[in-house]
Amino acid sequence: MSGPYTQPLVYFFGQGRADGTAAMKDVLGGKGAGLAEMTTIGIPVPPGFTIASNLCLHYLESRQFPKRLQAQVENALQRLESGTGKHLGDGDNPLLVSVRSGAAVSMPGMMETILNLGLNDVTVEGLTRQSGNPRFAWDSYRRFVQMYGSVVFDLSKKPFEQILEEHKQRCNIERDIDLPVEEMQAVVRRFKQRVREDAGKEFPEEPLAQLWGAIAAVFESWNTRRAIDYRKLHDIPDSMGTAVNIVAMVFGNLGEDSGTGVTFSRDPSTGEQTLYGEYLLNAQGEDVVSGSRDPLPIGTMKERLPHAYQELERVARTLERHFRDVQDMEFTIERGNLYMLQTRRAQRSGHAAVRIACDMVDEGLISEQEAVARIPPNDLNQLLHPTIDPHSKLDLLTTGLPASPGAACGTVVFDADRAERLGRAGQAVILVRRETSPEDFHGMVMAKAILTARGGMTSHAAVVARGMGKPCVAAAQGLMVDEKANRFSVNGRSITEGDWITVDGSTGKVFAGQAALIAPELSGNFNRVMKWADRIMQLRVRVNADTPGDAHRGRDFGAEGIGLCRTEHMFFTGDRLVAMREMIVAQDVAGRQRALAKLLPMQRGDFEAIFRAMEGYAVTIRLLDPPLHEFLPKEPHEIAALARELGMETATLTGIIERLHEVNPMLGLRGCRLGIIYPEITAMQVRAIFEAACTVAARKGRVMPEVMIPLTATVVEFRKQALIVRQVAEEVFQERQITVPYLLGTMIELPRAALTADEIAREAQFFSFGTNDLTQTTWGLSRDDAGRFLPYYLEHGVIEDDPFQVLDQAGVGKLIAMACDLGRRTRPDLKLGICGEHGGDPSAVAFCDRLGMNYVSCSPFRVPIARLAAAQAALAARGTMDRTRATV
Amino acid sequence: MSGPYTQPLVYFFGQGRADGTAAMKDVLGGKGAGLAEMTTIGIPVPPGFTIASNLCLHYLESRQFPKRLQAQVENALQRLESGTGKHLGDGDNPLLVSVRSGAAVSMPGMMETILNLGLNDVTVEGLTRQSGNPRFAWDSYRRFVQMYGSVVFDLSKKPFEQILEEHKQRCNIERDIDLPVEEMQAVVRRFKQRVREDAGKEFPEEPLAQLWGAIAAVFESWNTRRAIDYRKLHDIPDSMGTAVNIVAMVFGNLGEDSGTGVTFSRDPSTGEQTLYGEYLLNAQGEDVVSGSRDPLPIGTMKERLPHAYQELERVARTLERHFRDVQDMEFTIERGNLYMLQTRRAQRSGHAAVRIACDMVDEGLISEQEAVARIPPNDLNQLLHPTIDPHSKLDLLTTGLPASPGAACGTVVFDADRAERLGRAGQAVILVRRETSPEDFHGMVMAKAILTARGGMTSHAAVVARGMGKPCVAAAQGLMVDEKANRFSVNGRSITEGDWITVDGSTGKVFAGQAALIAPELSGNFNRVMKWADRIMQLRVRVNADTPGDAHRGRDFGAEGIGLCRTEHMFFTGDRLVAMREMIVAQDVAGRQRALAKLLPMQRGDFEAIFRAMEGYAVTIRLLDPPLHEFLPKEPHEIAALARELGMETATLTGIIERLHEVNPMLGLRGCRLGIIYPEITAMQVRAIFEAACTVAARKGRVMPEVMIPLTATVVEFRKQALIVRQVAEEVFQERQITVPYLLGTMIELPRAALTADEIAREAQFFSFGTNDLTQTTWGLSRDDAGRFLPYYLEHGVIEDDPFQVLDQAGVGKLIAMACDLGRRTRPDLKLGICGEHGGDPSAVAFCDRLGMNYVSCSPFRVPIARLAAAQAALAARGTMDRTRATV
Repeated sequence: MSGPYTQPLVYFFGQGRADGTAAMKDVLGGKGAGLAEMTTIGIPVPPGFTIASNLCLHYLESRQFPKRLQAQVENALQRLESGTGKHLGDGDNPLLVSVRSGAAVSMPGMMETILNLGLNDVTVEGLTRQSGNPRFAWDSYRRFVQMYGSVVFDLSKKPFEQILEEHKQRCNIERDIDLPVEEMQAVVRRFKQRVREDAGKEFPEEPLAQLWGAIAAVFESWNTRRAIDYRKLHDIPDSMGTAVNIVAMVFGNLGEDSGTGVTFSRDPSTGEQTLYGEYLLNAQGEDVVSGSRDPLPIGTMKERLPHAYQELERVARTLERHFRDVQDMEFTIERGNLYMLQTRRAQRSGHAAVRIACDMVDEGLISEQEAVARIPPNDLNQLLHPTIDPHSKLDLLTTGLPASPGAACGTVVFDADRAERLGRAGQAVILVRRETSPEDFHGMVMAKAILTARGGMTSHAAVVARGMGKPCVAAAQGLMVDEKANRFSVNGRSITEGDWITVDGSTGKVFAGQAALIAPELSGNFNRVMKWADRIMQLRVRVNADTPGDAHRGRDFGAEGIGLCRTEHMFFTGDRLVAMREMIVAQDVAGRQRALAKLLPMQRGDFEAIFRAMEGYAVTIRLLDPPLHEFLPKEPHEIAALARELGMETATLTGIIERLHEVNPMLGLRGCRLGIIYPEITAMQVRAIFEAACTVAARKGRVMPEVMIPLTATVVEFRKQALIVRQVAEEVFQERQITVPYLLGTMIELPRAALTADEIAREAQFFSFGTNDLTQTTWGLSRDDAGRFLPYYLEHGVIEDDPFQVLDQAGVGKLIAMACDLGRRTRPDLKLGICGEHGGDPSAVAFCDRLGMNYVSCSPFRVPIARLAAAQAALAARGTMDRTRATV
Repeated sequence: MSGPYTQPLVYFFGQGRADGTAAMKDVLGGKGAGLAEMTTIGIPVPPGFTIASNLCLHYLESRQFPKRLQAQVENALQRLESGTGKHLGDGDNPLLVSVRSGAAVSMPGMMETILNLGLNDVTVEGLTRQSGNPRFAWDSYRRFVQMYGSVVFDLSKKPFEQILEEHKQRCNIERDIDLPVEEMQAVVRRFKQRVREDAGKEFPEEPLAQLWGAIAAVFESWNTRRAIDYRKLHDIPDSMGTAVNIVAMVFGNLGEDSGTGVTFSRDPSTGEQTLYGEYLLNAQGEDVVSGSRDPLPIGTMKERLPHAYQELERVARTLERHFRDVQDMEFTIERGNLYMLQTRRAQRSGHAAVRIACDMVDEGLISEQEAVARIPPNDLNQLLHPTIDPHSKLDLLTTGLPASPGAACGTVVFDADRAERLGRAGQAVILVRRETSPEDFHGMVMAKAILTARGGMTSHAAVVARGMGKPCVAAAQGLMVDEKANRFSVNGRSITEGDWITVDGSTGKVFAGQAALIAPELSGNFNRVMKWADRIMQLRVRVNADTPGDAHRGRDFGAEGIGLCRTEHMFFTGDRLVAMREMIVAQDVAGRQRALAKLLPMQRGDFEAIFRAMEGYAVTIRLLDPPLHEFLPKEPHEIAALARELGMETATLTGIIERLHEVNPMLGLRGCRLGIIYPEITAMQVRAIFEAACTVAARKGRVMPEVMIPLTATVVEFRKQALIVRQVAEEVFQERQITVPYLLGTMIELPRAALTADEIAREAQFFSFGTNDLTQTTWGLSRDDAGRFLPYYLEHGVIEDDPFQVLDQAGVGKLIAMACDLGRRTRPDLKLGICGEHGGDPSAVAFCDRLGMNYVSCSPFRVPIARLAAAQAALAARGTMDRTRATV
């Protein structure tokens, strides 16, 4: 804590000069930094000073102010008094101030504000004389005592409101301001008495005592429950602290030529180039916040207060130019004069972010690089998926995890077969399941959205839905699915098959009925931004695609290749599932071979279409990965049906399924372990790959398969599988009399593979990090089971982020970095990529860029997001991001 | 392959001089090195020469001999001829030689031998004249052709034996040697014709051609199926190759004053100081090997050939002195003269190893350190557990994994309750289960041994049995357990409850009936060796002990503290299990608290007894680790019974159990995750620990608890649990008005913990590596499921060792080394130990010693083994092991 003792604690601003600048947000908070910067560039701002935020934690720990703060505050007060010509506590010409919180990161409404500080029984008379308006003066006093009581003495607001209400009723009037002065005086007296009784202390008449009490209260407000919760929710560190801004009061409530409001320099929803906001005439800021009166659209101010409006437009333009970004401003008009009370970078929708970035490039305000740097990659989701029309009237059923973005309406069905049938028939259906399994895949394909009662952000439903760009809400609260009765109940309501619901996978909300949707639209601006991003990014972006459809979609979104083609997804539907099951239950190699022979042409056909879709870009194909029991039914009646289909005894099939049961399937017979035990599976898949590749190549198509061995733990496993791959490839090349180039590499998804990456790289030509499984094994944490305690962990600060959502750079990332390093030591040109769920997460993209990886791969709808993130990572590497991010 | 071209390829020995020495085993093989060394020190050895083993792989790759070999062989042959005065192919005085394999590591009977080489139609006459015994000469010729046909031409032995049999029947005689000379000549002719027909080649008459053929054949024999299998079984590298020894023939079949045999310089079973072996009069070595005649005990030679016997005793003493170890020798007596053909270090039983080491120290032959270095730690198992009397007549039922050493007899039972009841009543029972679960614990305690149909070396049954020092055979082949019918069937036989069986957990064999057992005996020699080991070892050895009984046993075996006390094992029996279940199904904190209050005094009592047993040595107590569902029943009738006991609806309990179900329990809600979600569990356990510690301390007992947080993944988890531990400890100290010292540390059993060990060490005072779980997560390999493919992996060389048996130093070990390093960087005095199943594995002990860990911890019966291994590790660190291991 050397900071507070060596740096100034107080920063003055006023009369066109300021001790602080916009760059000092860490010390002054966002509001303080904005006020200082505005003052310096000549914007009309009431003078004041800011107490540094690093004092906050110090105060909260010791409940004491450092000695030197008093001198610095008094010095600033003197400057304020000499600048305004008013004096704190002066009975003739009293200085009144506002005391406001302001952290480096905006936490709207989370902390406290006190207006009109300096009023007491003496100065209220001075204010009366100054304003010539006793009612205004006493109303201000009344408000101050009320605010002070609630903020500094932590008293309930209720009793104050009741007193006020009594007086209003007695006088039979509606608006506070219409109370007669004598009544207002009586209210103030009763307020003070209330303070005395409830707080056990006198209301402080002395303005300096008022001020120190207010400063302490603002610091204290950093640690209110709601402030702490807000920070947790928004990942704001508790150690940041808030600054305190003490600013000379200007009054928006001096009459109909006064007012107060907030405005954006452009429309934050659409990006349109016009002031956007609202204001109230004859009001103080708290009236806008409290919602007691309906504010007017900012446009109407043009007529009501034309001069002030013009001035506001000029200020907005100036600030935009100066900060080179859209501003979100607070202002007060006192008797026709505009005063700016705050400015900050405006939050905006994804649509607006893209439009504004493009417009500002056109306006010469920012460079293309800055435009790219400014758009939060995840905001693109809004451009890529349908959204619910904000004007829609909605009937909320429940909320769950926003597992896959986008909104959809449909009638509910509870069974994958039925979903498929109705979906094929053109009906919009939403598949509702307790949780989905690979067996539900065909139903998910035909559903508009998926809703589950269980599972997390990386459950089967979530992963598959994101892959298909379909909305999904998982683990919906209180959802009880009765699959037999074709019904679900939630929060006391019951929804039956055929009822309409609307699912918003971007927010996790589920509504009854059919909401109006807005279709996504990929604007010209979107394409411009993407083009700029492509020019900047170093890291390439590939798509995770298991079907020709995914592959096409990935290409449309700009993917340069497929980073993960999960061949098992080809086996989950129709005839293929039957042949797959036949293969699994086969009693010997010959039986397996017969079933595999049926699968071969199907896989070959898929690969051919995928290769064509990728037009010569690399296609990384992962050999069979999941445990075989995933392909088999679990329920007795399904088992009986399958036994009939395969012409075997139910008891025999049950026995086979029992033997395949695993205690920890995640750590069982899967990945390359399958290919080693059943080399004929590997051989079939590799044959399908190379026959397809040769067919495409023979017709002059370009093709670049990358065969990927899953779940390698030791180099010997890789070597055993590689032998088969090379052999079969050679056979096919001989048969077809054509050769295609290919690479042979492995997933790195087990800690042991990362730890021995130098050995594995001796054999493998590329590594693709499977961050899902690598996270599971590194943490000893099952995705499927973590739902029982991860929420608690997040809520109680045991972990900052869900490691399945945000790549754990300290743990998993360390292994990845080690593997990259070890691998490249053995094979300098080792190709490196990541293909887990994190591939589309901007922080993971940045991490991969820093490690010098070749590519990231993600689901189709995240490809644009990853491209933008990759461009931003490249800018960060050049130091460009930091500069552009330093704006307010 | 620069070796063969720069080093000599051929090493001569004879006339008291040799090109090689005993230290050159790598080049000469064991046999060649022994022959060279014996020649040098004046032992009677027939002259000869050795072709270097590094030529073997070269030959096998190219099927060619390097040019310079021919010159060197011819040169050696000339020296042999001049030394013996005989000449290869000489019709008057023919030189005959044996051609034998011999690798650096003994592979008895695995490779080929050819005797009497040099015989042909001419030299056989010379041999007749030399020996004055035509029948001997032709019998030798007959044998040579037969051996050559089978070894060099790879012909079946059958036709040769048939021909010989025909001639014997025709002459109506029994012994080969009694055939008339003419018959023998006819046999030789027919043998040669057979060679011509079956091999398509003439039998080579030219002795040099015979010799080169034989050399090639010996090299080829390195790669026979059985040799390869043997090497795999015994971990002998394929790259070693065999040397070829060409030695002048001496004949043990020249009459009743001749003979051949093998002998040990001391009894290899008991260590007794007397020649131990057997011999045949008038025989060649192959007669001993073939078993066609019954050899005589070596003692009888004292009377039959007193001079040779004396000479043999003298030679044995000389060799023991020279090599400073017990020797295993082959010899031939030719007309009363003793010739030594081989000497090597004798294999010995665990009992003998200990006795011989002690005797040799007393004889001044070796130092105490050498004695310690020479005893294979795992051989102590024979001293610590009952063994089956080798004279017992046995009826083998099946073989499984040798999961826990020792032998036991008992009647079979199939149910833990019944095992407990009968066991308590004093019956010897063996618990037979498909696989065991924690619920069977009480039955296992009372059983003499455990037999399971499933599970691996680290299954529940195996781990618990080893902990209790009880025999266990797991995954017995073909064992089908019908627990309902109280019966098992195996290999067509059926065993019913009450039938006797014998289980040998050291070999994995299971026998029908009651075999005679030999009780273990811890001799004075054992204690001497242990005392020497203790003086040498640096690393300390602790015991894994969950009960006061285990703790006492650990102390008796010399454990200096408890490295792992698994508190959950205290919950699995009787009242405790009931209270535990009550705690698990409790609906709120209050309900959990009530159940925990019942568990508190039970745990406290256990801890008190354990602390007392440990007499002030550190006791590492791991807080609750397994997932809660492990404590709950699975079968519907058990669930119904429990519901009645707890006074709740069966449906409610079923629901609770269903909700606790996990897809991958290994990666689920367990370890410190439990203590974080249910802090009251941690608080209860910690209170029990410190109340017990204070009670012991108050009565002047010394006590040193080390509280261990399990399954830490992040430092925050540790911090959260540490807070509770410190708080509760402080409370107890206040209440009891006494303070005990303690440490607070964590298991490192997840890769993430190892990767962030620097952070964790900021808070944790010790690390204990849980290598079981660390292996599971690092490999992504479930112990419970690996049984489906690990056997295949081992058999097909995908892995060299089961990573749950032998610590995987390249992968898991790398993480451990990293964690030690990172941890000590933050906290230089960090205490480090290992407490997984590997703690008793000698190779892991050596690894821990190299890392400078403080201790290893293992099950009670492995403590002496670990102590010996720790001493050997300390010797290895000083370079002492290598020297003592360099003896033949």
